[in-house]
Amino acid sequence: MKLATVRTAGGTAAVRVDDDGAVELGAADLGEFLARPDWKAAAAAADGPRHELAGLDYAPLVPRPEKIFCVGLNYRTHILEMGRELPGAPALFAKFARALVGAYDPVELPAGSDQVDWEAELGVVVGAEVRHATPEQAAAAIAGYTVVNDVTARDFQYRSVQWLQGKTFERSTPVGPWLVTDAEPGEISCEVDGDVVQKADTADLVFGPADLVAYISQIITLVPGDLIATGTPGGVGHARKPPRYLSEGSELVTRVEGVGELRNTVAKGA
Amino acid sequence: MKLATVRTAGGTAAVRVDDDGAVELGAADLGEFLARPDWKAAAAAADGPRHELAGLDYAPLVPRPEKIFCVGLNYRTHILEMGRELPGAPALFAKFARALVGAYDPVELPAGSDQVDWEAELGVVVGAEVRHATPEQAAAAIAGYTVVNDVTARDFQYRSVQWLQGKTFERSTPVGPWLVTDAEPGEISCEVDGDVVQKADTADLVFGPADLVAYISQIITLVPGDLIATGTPGGVGHARKPPRYLSEGSELVTRVEGVGELRNTVAKGA
Repeated sequence: MKLATVRTAGGTAAVRVDDDGAVELGAADLGEFLARPDWKAAAAAADGPRHELAGLDYAPLVPRPEKIFCVGLNYRTHILEMGRELPGAPALFAKFARALVGAYDPVELPAGSDQVDWEAELGVVVGAEVRHATPEQAAAAIAGYTVVNDVTARDFQYRSVQWLQGKTFERSTPVGPWLVTDAEPGEISCEVDGDVVQKADTADLVFGPADLVAYISQIITLVPGDLIATGTPGGVGHARKPPRYLSEGSELVTRVEGVGELRNTVAKGA
Repeated sequence: MKLATVRTAGGTAAVRVDDDGAVELGAADLGEFLARPDWKAAAAAADGPRHELAGLDYAPLVPRPEKIFCVGLNYRTHILEMGRELPGAPALFAKFARALVGAYDPVELPAGSDQVDWEAELGVVVGAEVRHATPEQAAAAIAGYTVVNDVTARDFQYRSVQWLQGKTFERSTPVGPWLVTDAEPGEISCEVDGDVVQKADTADLVFGPADLVAYISQIITLVPGDLIATGTPGGVGHARKPPRYLSEGSELVTRVEGVGELRNTVAKGA
């Protein structure tokens, strides 16, 4: 089952995306919908107003998550090839909801940065409130998967030892198009202007989706709609020689096999 | 003028705190109230239900800010005494709203940490939407000041290069008791069980309140109710020899002259 938030004439709406159209779920967005304890059954049974697939305008999957957690280095192969040791704990940082854009929206280049880079990531959406979750409870609290590109202004990221300021530029982070409730994520890849720049297997994550939910829930209560961006594999532009960055007009495609695809054009931002 | 969020029998309420009592402002909390463009005049004119000062139960000043930005090393004297250079940009990291507690609430010790430390900080509350603010616009967008203790689980903070996980434990960060709209903050201090452990002058900040609002607004839109914790001076427990940490029953007093005082007992957390 695929669930999304779309923009309609009357505001945003949570929808189920079927093969032959989208069906409204009776909530203003997917975050509000996932807060219903029976969201899964309600989504399956929904029979609200319908929309044609071709006209769907995807908003950020959950437009205003209470929390967005991101993970630093988390692909085993990439960590080892860089000569580093596998971490004992995930490197967690935050992003604010205003950074999010929809799956096909423009990604805005921050004014003042000339080192804007891509980071294809598997996104995990929380579907139930959890605190101090066991591995089983953590797995059960995952609503499903989505696709994120944790677009990063490297110059701002490295202005201090804390990465937040390079990670939370307004309208810089596409997420969507939908949440998939019943698929296993496979290969993750990123293309820039038709060149495959990242390709890896999401099974290579050091801290997998349930590990991350369990770990974070030791710190703070996770609630429906919370988003976890699980980290990016090798192949980012900043590590290339010479480095390669996004610029106005760049075409960015971010794909997770079994989950979905983001297609974003990079635009001049505010 | 002092404004706060208090808990009442009917839920939380934004109030103006006068010398002889508190007056309700007609909003569920201070974040909602500050979103009114005329909040300052409305606060001054408010004449709603009254509460006695003695019975006030302070909630976190803004219970659910859209964003909480925190700043790393930001006291000039402390940076220089540690032999470091003054930074060219603030070290920004985030905290989530669930970490906040009220001015006199228990501060909860995270289960799993035995290195819980204090960080007295001047808090800045945003009172108007700003993006790419000039220094003048930034200063005008500040609603006022409050007191924060950025209580930190050092062991979690240093598990990775990103500090977030040590900074956002549930119900760990007192903020309040009120927002002061018309005072200049003076000396900042922290006491633990009656011992003065931090004392500094808020005028010693490398990046002052308006600098931080202007800087952050280059990255993302700041909105009414957003909170900026401006960094802590020297004297934290982790840097002492031997180190000193908070434990169950510790009495934590955090004070900013001209602004207010937090009084929190440290309690066993979930």
